[in-house]
Amino acid sequence: MIVILKQGADEKRIEGLISRIEKMGLSCHKSQGEHTTILGIIGDTSRVDIEAIKANEIVEDVKRVSEPYKTVNRKFHPEDTVISVPVAGGEAKLGGGFFAVIAGPCSVECEEQIVKVAREVKKSGATMLRGGAFKPRTSPYSFQGLHAEGLELLKIAKQETGLPIVSEIMDLSHLELFRDVDVIQVGARNMQNFELLKALGHVGKPILLKRGLANTIEEFLMSAEYIVSGGNPNVILCERGIRTFETMTRNTLDIAAVPLLKRLSHLPVIVDPSHASGIPWLVEPLSKAAISAGADGLMIEVHNDPANALSDGAQSLTPAQFDRVMEKVKAQLEFEGKKTV
Amino acid sequence: MIVILKQGADEKRIEGLISRIEKMGLSCHKSQGEHTTILGIIGDTSRVDIEAIKANEIVEDVKRVSEPYKTVNRKFHPEDTVISVPVAGGEAKLGGGFFAVIAGPCSVECEEQIVKVAREVKKSGATMLRGGAFKPRTSPYSFQGLHAEGLELLKIAKQETGLPIVSEIMDLSHLELFRDVDVIQVGARNMQNFELLKALGHVGKPILLKRGLANTIEEFLMSAEYIVSGGNPNVILCERGIRTFETMTRNTLDIAAVPLLKRLSHLPVIVDPSHASGIPWLVEPLSKAAISAGADGLMIEVHNDPANALSDGAQSLTPAQFDRVMEKVKAQLEFEGKKTV
Amino acid sequence: MIVILKQGADEKRIEGLISRIEKMGLSCHKSQGEHTTILGIIGDTSRVDIEAIKANEIVEDVKRVSEPYKTVNRKFHPEDTVISVPVAGGEAKLGGGFFAVIAGPCSVECEEQIVKVAREVKKSGATMLRGGAFKPRTSPYSFQGLHAEGLELLKIAKQETGLPIVSEIMDLSHLELFRDVDVIQVGARNMQNFELLKALGHVGKPILLKRGLANTIEEFLMSAEYIVSGGNPNVILCERGIRTFETMTRNTLDIAAVPLLKRLSHLPVIVDPSHASGIPWLVEPLSKAAISAGADGLMIEVHNDPANALSDGAQSLTPAQFDRVMEKVKAQLEFEGKKTV
Amino acid sequence: MIVILKQGADEKRIEGLISRIEKMGLSCHKSQGEHTTILGIIGDTSRVDIEAIKANEIVEDVKRVSEPYKTVNRKFHPEDTVISVPVAGGEAKLGGGFFAVIAGPCSVECEEQIVKVAREVKKSGATMLRGGAFKPRTSPYSFQGLHAEGLELLKIAKQETGLPIVSEIMDLSHLELFRDVDVIQVGARNMQNFELLKALGHVGKPILLKRGLANTIEEFLMSAEYIVSGGNPNVILCERGIRTFETMTRNTLDIAAVPLLKRLSHLPVIVDPSHASGIPWLVEPLSKAAISAGADGLMIEVHNDPANALSDGAQSLTPAQFDRVMEKVKAQLEFEGKKTV
Repeated sequence: MIVILKQGADEKRIEGLISRIEKMGLSCHKSQGEHTTILGIIGDTSRVDIEAIKANEIVEDVKRVSEPYKTVNRKFHPEDTVISVPVAGGEAKLGGGFFAVIAGPCSVECEEQIVKVAREVKKSGATMLRGGAFKPRTSPYSFQGLHAEGLELLKIAKQETGLPIVSEIMDLSHLELFRDVDVIQVGARNMQNFELLKALGHVGKPILLKRGLANTIEEFLMSAEYIVSGGNPNVILCERGIRTFETMTRNTLDIAAVPLLKRLSHLPVIVDPSHASGIPWLVEPLSKAAISAGADGLMIEVHNDPANALSDGAQSLTPAQFDRVMEKVKAQLEFEGKKTV
Repeated sequence: MIVILKQGADEKRIEGLISRIEKMGLSCHKSQGEHTTILGIIGDTSRVDIEAIKANEIVEDVKRVSEPYKTVNRKFHPEDTVISVPVAGGEAKLGGGFFAVIAGPCSVECEEQIVKVAREVKKSGATMLRGGAFKPRTSPYSFQGLHAEGLELLKIAKQETGLPIVSEIMDLSHLELFRDVDVIQVGARNMQNFELLKALGHVGKPILLKRGLANTIEEFLMSAEYIVSGGNPNVILCERGIRTFETMTRNTLDIAAVPLLKRLSHLPVIVDPSHASGIPWLVEPLSKAAISAGADGLMIEVHNDPANALSDGAQSLTPAQFDRVMEKVKAQLEFEGKKTV
Repeated sequence: MIVILKQGADEKRIEGLISRIEKMGLSCHKSQGEHTTILGIIGDTSRVDIEAIKANEIVEDVKRVSEPYKTVNRKFHPEDTVISVPVAGGEAKLGGGFFAVIAGPCSVECEEQIVKVAREVKKSGATMLRGGAFKPRTSPYSFQGLHAEGLELLKIAKQETGLPIVSEIMDLSHLELFRDVDVIQVGARNMQNFELLKALGHVGKPILLKRGLANTIEEFLMSAEYIVSGGNPNVILCERGIRTFETMTRNTLDIAAVPLLKRLSHLPVIVDPSHASGIPWLVEPLSKAAISAGADGLMIEVHNDPANALSDGAQSLTPAQFDRVMEKVKAQLEFEGKKTV
Repeated sequence: MIVILKQGADEKRIEGLISRIEKMGLSCHKSQGEHTTILGIIGDTSRVDIEAIKANEIVEDVKRVSEPYKTVNRKFHPEDTVISVPVAGGEAKLGGGFFAVIAGPCSVECEEQIVKVAREVKKSGATMLRGGAFKPRTSPYSFQGLHAEGLELLKIAKQETGLPIVSEIMDLSHLELFRDVDVIQVGARNMQNFELLKALGHVGKPILLKRGLANTIEEFLMSAEYIVSGGNPNVILCERGIRTFETMTRNTLDIAAVPLLKRLSHLPVIVDPSHASGIPWLVEPLSKAAISAGADGLMIEVHNDPANALSDGAQSLTPAQFDRVMEKVKAQLEFEGKKTV
């Protein structure tokens, strides 16, 4: 961490700042230039509050040199994290060369719907089933999901197909209800719901963490750090588009985030082309781009009857459309030498 | 709501869509142009899911004509909502010509600190005391607040000064702890924590709702709609800057949001210049601009010792700086004919 | 085009607006709902100024139904435009299944440098040579390019290698100097330099038009429309990243823009991963993603000595790095069934 | 300027980099930490290309400590620049306590129109007349302005009213036509048209430079630096909104840019609430906010018949509306102790 001091900063105050930094167990080197004096802080600066240093009257600016995240940092954990989900007769894997396709409807609507979609997506090659039981909706008047009943229906679909299930949690008070969910999803709007993240650090199952609409890659990794530093190493990062000035797509897929996250962290990274674009026919090119960019998986919305879906129908594929996308996905995975299990 | 159909849409499918819309209790007028056919949907469309209509194969686009919010809409409630907080020997008011200044430290740190700051800001003219007990921090290694103890210390500061207290809730499981807090704040990161919003719709005290970093004005009003439609009419909207490409300030204060929110809604609107800019000397010009733009209040961070603050010191004013800002604020309020109580 | 009228709009004023629209040679259908009256405007609305209609006191909002661009619109020109550049002994092609790789240094610095880089990139498989002679630099104190001399050096490199040359024009007064340049580039900062675009509509050579940092896909197509409607049908669209809040990359590559532009327009679309990311090691994954998303070409910065480059060295590849990227690019092009000539 | 070296950087290469920096006439201090080695560069670093240093293999990151602009930097020119425009019987002033109101139509349409508007805005208190003769329009099919004839009509309006005239230049080939224009405007889309900026550095009249839609405050100042370092010290900075995700307003007025620009630079700063919002009734609150934030002037669109304006009618005020805004503006200027001449 580098502290740039204001010109003409009082020597006594500089000494005070240095001694304060040293009290945190860090060492501090002063570098005196003609116009600028710089303090280089050495040690584990991840616990240093950059804002507190900046608040000092003699400080012009503070720059972080090392990353503020540790447990998710690839520097300290070079090998890929592989997420493993036990399934009937084996396991589904994600990361470290294993590619997962998580597909299903935005919302679980009824038994018939979720079982039908589960069978269809499995047939096309999906390795996990997604389905929302608790739905974050902009409007209080929109369908909010079937809640506990939705989770029960997901379990039935799992029994019928053997696909592990992924579902979104919206509040930590619901955690008990997710006992039989295989992967717990944290939605974009909850990426900085820190109480929820802390609770999920104590859960013994994988967490699929979506990037917030306005969150930087560093903030995304810091949210993962909350979970992993809490004791749960199984976090899947999901890039799902950020909010920009462009309105033709629902969000802007930040494709560069995929290789960046994979270089900075050992955690697996997947892409959600459905939410990133909001346009069904874009799912195919964006899925292919995600694989090329190094993603470890995809999360795709599939609905048996998009026009009558209770939420987000506009961006869902029909099972037949999904099947065509999967043809392309499988060919590309083979080209890239990635496996699905 | 206007539904624009695709060119050459099948007549039978159009009839199907119309009958589906009519089943929702809405009426539907078809307007056939040479190249474009349009359906005009009349009735209470706030419950219609725009995405579901868009998902129909024959639909090109859907445009909302009327606002999706109702209880917070000024059209149906023309007079200003005035928030009233009972205090020893009277009440503090916000909205409808009453201007409130909410000041205090980012985090409550100890009794001495919060009582000292409370006394100072009261002397300078603040009408409410803010202080964080639960702190949303990007890093799990940063100070997270004193939690229940922080709320107890705020109560002591209230007893000492008579100032009503404002503090942020981060999870609905903490709601019980906020029994003696006068105004419950929902932070920017929780603006779309819908489970929390629903719970606050049943609470009998004012809610200070901050705009999310990447949320539109319409989404902001929809989040307020969650609370008000739930039964709690006392919501204060707080513009605190949005995230843009500009990095010189922490966020970009969307000053136009103030008059826009006040025209679209009857709820009071305040501005937080401390978080919007992250730069102490900008608090004065931004506070003045907020008053000129029609704001009903300000929320300002004040710390007795910013350089040693446990959070967000860099953007805090000292009590002396706050006092100078308040001189300007008071003069401007007098010029604008606004009262503080 | 749909005009939504204000509630209770005066009948006489509505008639006045209708007759004004009809005078533009358009027809206008009124659709009267219970709460909303809508005018549907039929005909060639590309010449209608949406702002002028909105300015009418009785108008609530105006929505465009058909695209405001015509000559670049795929609806009226379904087959792909193929750009052909004559070269010694044949032609270089871009679009319609032909993939081009445009590589070279940010700035032309001296004959030795440009000839060396040209030879290297040709050997690795590049089909065109890029090199800046006029450089748009944020600072007046930065190297601004060799100007006319730079263009002369590019010609020498072309003679030595046979590669057609691509260079950026910064002002229409320089047009004469670009006589021997094969493809004229318009930089992101000039995407809405309309006088320049108009002039390039009368030029008999291909124009490589880069998307502006803050320009929407629709604005991008409208700028292309300036050139094509002026008489020059040979426009190459280049996605090079947009400006967002994310600072880890120089810009955010909008990968979805590739399939969107190709669906909306018949013009070829290329991607510049060097400027989009500003990070050399991201060029490979982003190039691969671009091919998967359907791009017709790539534009990559290559410099023989990035650390001593006079501009943008930080994002340049060395020839050896470029060669490794090209191995991957060629494999992927073969997989996708695309040709380079 | 601080150069952060990669861990384990080769000593010989470090020496090479240091000697390269010293050859630029700068001095370089090495500060060796346990994990990080830092080079502090001292001297006039405004000519150092930060990208070139970053391209060095041993460099992790480079941070600028001092501003890259000099001639516009308040550090080297503490007193406010006051722009003076000679008018019949005196001068119009802007900056240093003098507040200017520049009003008029988006486009000059005919003599009757511009003279009528000029008389009206003068009567209400405007101190300069704006009017577009060359109009940057997104669509090639929109009205592009009257060009030379428009400038002639502006001169007539000046003769009739004595108001100095402000008009936008779109290409440097038109410079000769602006001989009698008092203040030459550079539009947002041309903020980084560097050839144009260079040419305007040699012009003997004030330049009104608008901030680009996606340009940072630092880039804005660097564009002003192009003009001032070229020899023309009379630059007026105009904040006119930036592009963000919010769509309710045309752009987002960055109100904090006003005090920031005034602290960083000695140049005067004005605000254009018409373009910033695109909504006529927002002009009043945003004008008031601009004055409170310290602006030196306003630029407001006024049209005698907005509904029939040939461009941007939707955001124009009628003369009567402008008069009401000016009542508020004048009261506020008096409150702030600012003069208009």
